[in-house]
Amino acid sequence: MKVEKISELTTSRLSVYLRCLEELSASGVRTISSEELARKFRLNSAQIRKDLAYFGEFGVRGVGYYVDDLREHLRRILGLDKEHKVCIIGAGRLGTALADYNGFKKSNFSVVALFDIDESKIGKSIGNVKIYNFADFHKIVRLEKIEIAVITVPAYAAQQVLDEVVRAGIKAVLNFAPVTLIADASVKVKTVDLTTSLESLSYFLNQPVNGRDE
Amino acid sequence: MKVEKISELTTSRLSVYLRCLEELSASGVRTISSEELARKFRLNSAQIRKDLAYFGEFGVRGVGYYVDDLREHLRRILGLDKEHKVCIIGAGRLGTALADYNGFKKSNFSVVALFDIDESKIGKSIGNVKIYNFADFHKIVRLEKIEIAVITVPAYAAQQVLDEVVRAGIKAVLNFAPVTLIADASVKVKTVDLTTSLESLSYFLNQPVNGRDE
Repeated sequence: MKVEKISELTTSRLSVYLRCLEELSASGVRTISSEELARKFRLNSAQIRKDLAYFGEFGVRGVGYYVDDLREHLRRILGLDKEHKVCIIGAGRLGTALADYNGFKKSNFSVVALFDIDESKIGKSIGNVKIYNFADFHKIVRLEKIEIAVITVPAYAAQQVLDEVVRAGIKAVLNFAPVTLIADASVKVKTVDLTTSLESLSYFLNQPVNGRDE
Repeated sequence: MKVEKISELTTSRLSVYLRCLEELSASGVRTISSEELARKFRLNSAQIRKDLAYFGEFGVRGVGYYVDDLREHLRRILGLDKEHKVCIIGAGRLGTALADYNGFKKSNFSVVALFDIDESKIGKSIGNVKIYNFADFHKIVRLEKIEIAVITVPAYAAQQVLDEVVRAGIKAVLNFAPVTLIADASVKVKTVDLTTSLESLSYFLNQPVNGRDE
């Protein structure tokens, strides 16, 4: 398997394929061609073949893909065959909402700690997740073997928090603060901009009605 | 300009380009080639040219793109030259976090109403956004001219809420409930799965260190 750089858009597509395969598997489908997969989930079949070919030859001529095999391959490529421990920094509305997010509960990501600097929040819990003092960040990261940090602090505090996260040795960061953050190239910072989702809806509202059934 | 169906992945990329152009414009850059744009923001230059060519010829030979012109074109394509009114159904942690999300405040999406069925929440406000009784949904949608509904209710209630949203005539829905929802083809439902973002970080953690600086 190649270990060259692949783009974030590619990994996002692999996530989408994985989601489709899980749905197919759950409904008992054993094999599927790239064309069927594309038609069923409104994807691009050439893109599917290209993306998957990059990681090796998964398709079988005349059969297509074995749904369960491909699903397991993708899980392994995405590193989803292991559990990943996650912490959330900022126990405000968004941080506590994410600690409680049901989608994560079904995944192999487990939120093990929330951090804040507000004394009135420290020591409380959201579900099973305790809110710690951010002053103890390094210690808890080490103890809990945390690999991923989610930043949900206000925009003005986000860069400072990220610097601390990097000093604690964390290499993967999901940032919800609406601001661009700067980190060393050895650290992956993914900023989630929730307005992007609204923008694709706005595009749709802008289309004539017959252009809508994509 | 063509009005054929374009995929959601394309509109997401247009959103990304727009974000880059806004950053360039803010730092005083007047023109940029697709290659520079790609290098600066780690995108694919051939993909940029292909995506933009689809909507007409924006580039100028020997110059590249005029940053401000292209930004305005993209804003118009994405329907961002108008304000869109948004409501959020489910005034729990995630719903109230979104009502308060700073990223939306800077955009042309304005959250004008929250809805819930919990008597203890109805009548309260989150910032400037009032929590209404979901029983009054149709009336408020009409009064406030709401175009987009964001669903943040628990998974088990989401389909029922979506059916009501569709009956109220709303055509664009952003769903945060971790469940696949079914609607008529004339309604666009975009499900935001927050685990997808974590999955691309997980892929990154899985790579040897020298493969990380993409």
